[in-house]
Amino acid sequence: MDAVNRIENALNLAFSRAEGPSCPPRLAAAMRSAVFPRGARIRPRICLAVAAACGEDDPAIADAAAASIELLHCASLVHDDLPCFDDADTRRGRPTIHAAYGEALAVLAGDGLIVLAFQNLTRAARSPHQLAGLLNIIGYAVGAPSGIVAGQAWECEPTVDLAHYHRAKTASLFAASTEAGAAASGAEARPWRLLGARLGEAYQVADDIRDAVGNAQELGKPVGRDAALGRPSATQEFGVQGAVERLERLVREGIESIPLCPGANDLRALIMLEATRLLPKGLARHAA
Amino acid sequence: MDAVNRIENALNLAFSRAEGPSCPPRLAAAMRSAVFPRGARIRPRICLAVAAACGEDDPAIADAAAASIELLHCASLVHDDLPCFDDADTRRGRPTIHAAYGEALAVLAGDGLIVLAFQNLTRAARSPHQLAGLLNIIGYAVGAPSGIVAGQAWECEPTVDLAHYHRAKTASLFAASTEAGAAASGAEARPWRLLGARLGEAYQVADDIRDAVGNAQELGKPVGRDAALGRPSATQEFGVQGAVERLERLVREGIESIPLCPGANDLRALIMLEATRLLPKGLARHAA
Repeated sequence: MDAVNRIENALNLAFSRAEGPSCPPRLAAAMRSAVFPRGARIRPRICLAVAAACGEDDPAIADAAAASIELLHCASLVHDDLPCFDDADTRRGRPTIHAAYGEALAVLAGDGLIVLAFQNLTRAARSPHQLAGLLNIIGYAVGAPSGIVAGQAWECEPTVDLAHYHRAKTASLFAASTEAGAAASGAEARPWRLLGARLGEAYQVADDIRDAVGNAQELGKPVGRDAALGRPSATQEFGVQGAVERLERLVREGIESIPLCPGANDLRALIMLEATRLLPKGLARHAA
Repeated sequence: MDAVNRIENALNLAFSRAEGPSCPPRLAAAMRSAVFPRGARIRPRICLAVAAACGEDDPAIADAAAASIELLHCASLVHDDLPCFDDADTRRGRPTIHAAYGEALAVLAGDGLIVLAFQNLTRAARSPHQLAGLLNIIGYAVGAPSGIVAGQAWECEPTVDLAHYHRAKTASLFAASTEAGAAASGAEARPWRLLGARLGEAYQVADDIRDAVGNAQELGKPVGRDAALGRPSATQEFGVQGAVERLERLVREGIESIPLCPGANDLRALIMLEATRLLPKGLARHAA
């Protein structure tokens, strides 16, 4: 089964635990709507790619870790779209959760997805040692002091260091994706952290570039939000050309950090391919 | 050390993991403010009381489970106070988190507390088997389909069954408190579920009674909110006198369900004492 199908199956398996006749129907619908239909699934695909590169001795746990990471990412999008944050009405060309279900259910759907992510790990882990390892990796990536919750919270501080902000808001969950992929394959997780961190920083820079120069229709969401909201961004700090160069350097550093493993060559090729997809079409040609 | 000090110490220990120089200062302050100074700490006290009644072979894990349960309870209060839910400006006589720090940080503080609760279990569990057991008990009590997130979500449905709503919104985390206390002591968790569920239902009925007839100053929060918000409540369904009788019956059923254990008598006495504290002063005399 290819990675995309494995991820969708793993997410559906996670949801089978959260639903049922006792679940408030609108909560179940809001939670599903936050996760399906699929977005890029970039974090879980990185997780599975690293698990495969390491030898992948347990696909079930790699799938579950990938799904939990995606659930946490989706939860953060739901809360980040709320009126008190980005106040976004659309995402992936569809109404955001609060636009479709109201703010209260959007807050609860995000909460429910966070809990489900941790429950899902519990169900899937074969050894309790593995469970503790994955929980530590993934918990660190989403909570305070340095995870995505902290990253979003930097937007509420009077002064922000851009690198610090990006590291917490985006790079942390990418770093968990590579670390969890390695851990799911029984490899040492820590040496895989730098790859994920660099890919996450690159992804955030690409997001800033798309927000500054992208096309709303191509992206399926409004553009120019960072400038409108006065948020720190790489294009604001380095200009568009400087941001593109920064992105290229981050991807290169990530690739160079890949530890020795059976599938290192395939992994490098996959990351190069993904990196070219990150930029709007005109800039992608330039970057390549 | 008495239970109250153990709980405060365990909560501080949990926080030591979430804070540090890399944490956005206002997020750290909002999260602390949601948990300290202490409220009644009724759920963690129940957890520790059951652990003690079962023999308590590992106080550190009982303390950690109690703290995680309280963190999740505090998270639910922060989100429940938001303008899109109860729109409450004060709690325990102090400004609510969104009133003090803004809505965005209130959403994030709640998210951060949920993550911290799961991280805290990971840190404390001595055996991985114990970790999986506690994660399952506590995850079930807070997520969909039947935990407190689902309970709050019933407020967003067009029709609500009162028993179902109370079971998810309040009883679920009380049931986790008794189950986790037993599990922390190495006892079988499931037979302790009914005690927690009944105490939780009783607590919710008491809350409805206080909301209907209590004194805002005595409670430290506004009263009459259920009626004002058109929310289902026990006093609306049964009247005040009927609600008091229902509360007494629930406490009795809970006490009768206590499994055989070394400290059953002390536990019964403690629960009777707690139950008399649940009602406003005039009604408490009546109930006794």
